[in-house]
Amino acid sequence: MNITIRPAEKKDCAQMMQLVNELALYEKAPEQVTVSFDHFVESGFGSNPVWWAFVATQMEIYDDSDAEQSDVRGEKVIGFALYYIRYSTWKGQRMYLEDLLVTEDMRGRGIGAMLFDQLIQSCKEKKYSGLVWQVLDWNEPAINFYKKYNAGIDAGWLNGSLSF
Amino acid sequence: MNITIRPAEKKDCAQMMQLVNELALYEKAPEQVTVSFDHFVESGFGSNPVWWAFVATQMEIYDDSDAEQSDVRGEKVIGFALYYIRYSTWKGQRMYLEDLLVTEDMRGRGIGAMLFDQLIQSCKEKKYSGLVWQVLDWNEPAINFYKKYNAGIDAGWLNGSLSF
Repeated sequence: MNITIRPAEKKDCAQMMQLVNELALYEKAPEQVTVSFDHFVESGFGSNPVWWAFVATQMEIYDDSDAEQSDVRGEKVIGFALYYIRYSTWKGQRMYLEDLLVTEDMRGRGIGAMLFDQLIQSCKEKKYSGLVWQVLDWNEPAINFYKKYNAGIDAGWLNGSLSF
Repeated sequence: MNITIRPAEKKDCAQMMQLVNELALYEKAPEQVTVSFDHFVESGFGSNPVWWAFVATQMEIYDDSDAEQSDVRGEKVIGFALYYIRYSTWKGQRMYLEDLLVTEDMRGRGIGAMLFDQLIQSCKEKKYSGLVWQVLDWNEPAINFYKKYNAGIDAGWLNGSLSF
């Protein structure tokens, strides 16, 4: 498959945002994506980053017969795991996984697991006390995926929110 | 009551941590607090802060008959709201309220609301797109408190976690 997992760079932002928008369209909620591209880039690669990510990429050879070269190589982002640091007054610094996303036609090939394994390794390197996330209670494939890691999957919490 | 709401400073950390430990004791889970004091201070006031807070303080006059002065004034931390920045690929930067805590004998006096109002004002000043938090589904007083703000209170999510 020739898949690479590496830290996200600024140049990946356009492809990452494209995956976000594809998913929102698939979930029939494209109007819910109100973040601007500039704000996304600034929040990850500006002077005070508030998110970090690993991307899964694949080398692609495009057939471009109009180009002078017979083929054009490109690195395609096919998934990513985006996180930030969460602070618990009981447990200290933990990694919060906000999005774990693999493009639809590349699912079922273990790419999500490659990204998740990378997060676990990164937590250990950075001495975070844990990795936490949320999952929808009807999303059985995702819940089963996390259970393979013996993850705690806890009910009993409600999400509160105010929008401005 | 003479209550002041202000941004937390480094000198408040000891009293804040004391409130955290009191609450854990009250919840019969003191062993769950595994964060060290140094790590708490470093995480809030080191070179890369990952949490911020507002404290509610009260001026107290201690009767200290051994001291040369007839009374000793002290600023007591009676509650705090601790938050960090959450990044959503749909909504951008939002404030995540991790802890909203008022010491037991000071509850019912609107101090939680003063802290929460301060968070809302701060979100607007910093142009965060929202304020989010979690609440236990059996905590009716807390849920009713948030409903007064017309907050969304959404079920359907499970909390996943791995500890290292």
